[in-house]
Amino acid sequence: MHAENMAEEYPVLTMESDAVEAARLLAEHRLPGLVVTDKGRPRSILPASQVVRFLVPGYVQDDPSLARVLDESMADQVANTLGGKSVGDLITDEAPELAVVNADDTIIEVAAIMARLRCPLAAVMRDKDHLIGVITASRLLQAALAAK
Amino acid sequence: MHAENMAEEYPVLTMESDAVEAARLLAEHRLPGLVVTDKGRPRSILPASQVVRFLVPGYVQDDPSLARVLDESMADQVANTLGGKSVGDLITDEAPELAVVNADDTIIEVAAIMARLRCPLAAVMRDKDHLIGVITASRLLQAALAAK
Repeated sequence: MHAENMAEEYPVLTMESDAVEAARLLAEHRLPGLVVTDKGRPRSILPASQVVRFLVPGYVQDDPSLARVLDESMADQVANTLGGKSVGDLITDEAPELAVVNADDTIIEVAAIMARLRCPLAAVMRDKDHLIGVITASRLLQAALAAK
Repeated sequence: MHAENMAEEYPVLTMESDAVEAARLLAEHRLPGLVVTDKGRPRSILPASQVVRFLVPGYVQDDPSLARVLDESMADQVANTLGGKSVGDLITDEAPELAVVNADDTIIEVAAIMARLRCPLAAVMRDKDHLIGVITASRLLQAALAAK
């Protein structure tokens, strides 16, 4: 089993993509994260949990009981925290390094690269510069269990 | 919107559950992670990426190019690394602390707790000791975007 056989089509964002649109794609497709490209090359991962973090002011993260006194509705919170922002604004240094694999890498190579980077998804490239899809950790487990 | 309205039914594991069965549940339901209970109470999270990590020997994680020389098939690798192990064996100190929320917590409280713990899912409890479901980060974004 090679990476190209495991890769799935996935929405892909750029650093300039709209942050609200990124939240919408994660929500609609129920994805753990999205691949972010820069000048056509996979560059970073935007985990859904990172977008959730942006919805919450820092002082409420420090003391979640303060969420009760927050005046804003969640809709306002989305507009205030994500509105007008780009995906690049949401990506911090804390994001895991994106795993990038080649179409002909074996399943064990893909697992090794995801494991080493502690990244929950891998971007699959053909000829080093054409992104053909994405492999999530759960997709990799599915392929591993189906392997003969 | 309260936690109980966002919670979804999810397979739940115990520390004693079979590790191969855990991999199968993550794969079948394409989940980013599973809630692990201990004596009926949510105790930890088993991320799919953590199970992937277990499939790969340490020396291959350090140098993924060695995956090419690995003799085992992926099926053997699953049997060798997960066979006979329990979920408790897969959970290391590195796992994020599981977010646990109450059924009547608001969506902003849930987001705040997930954000603070950097946990990609939250277990939802009613009356402090009955687990009624799970909220993933992408489910929370879905609810946030639907909020009026």
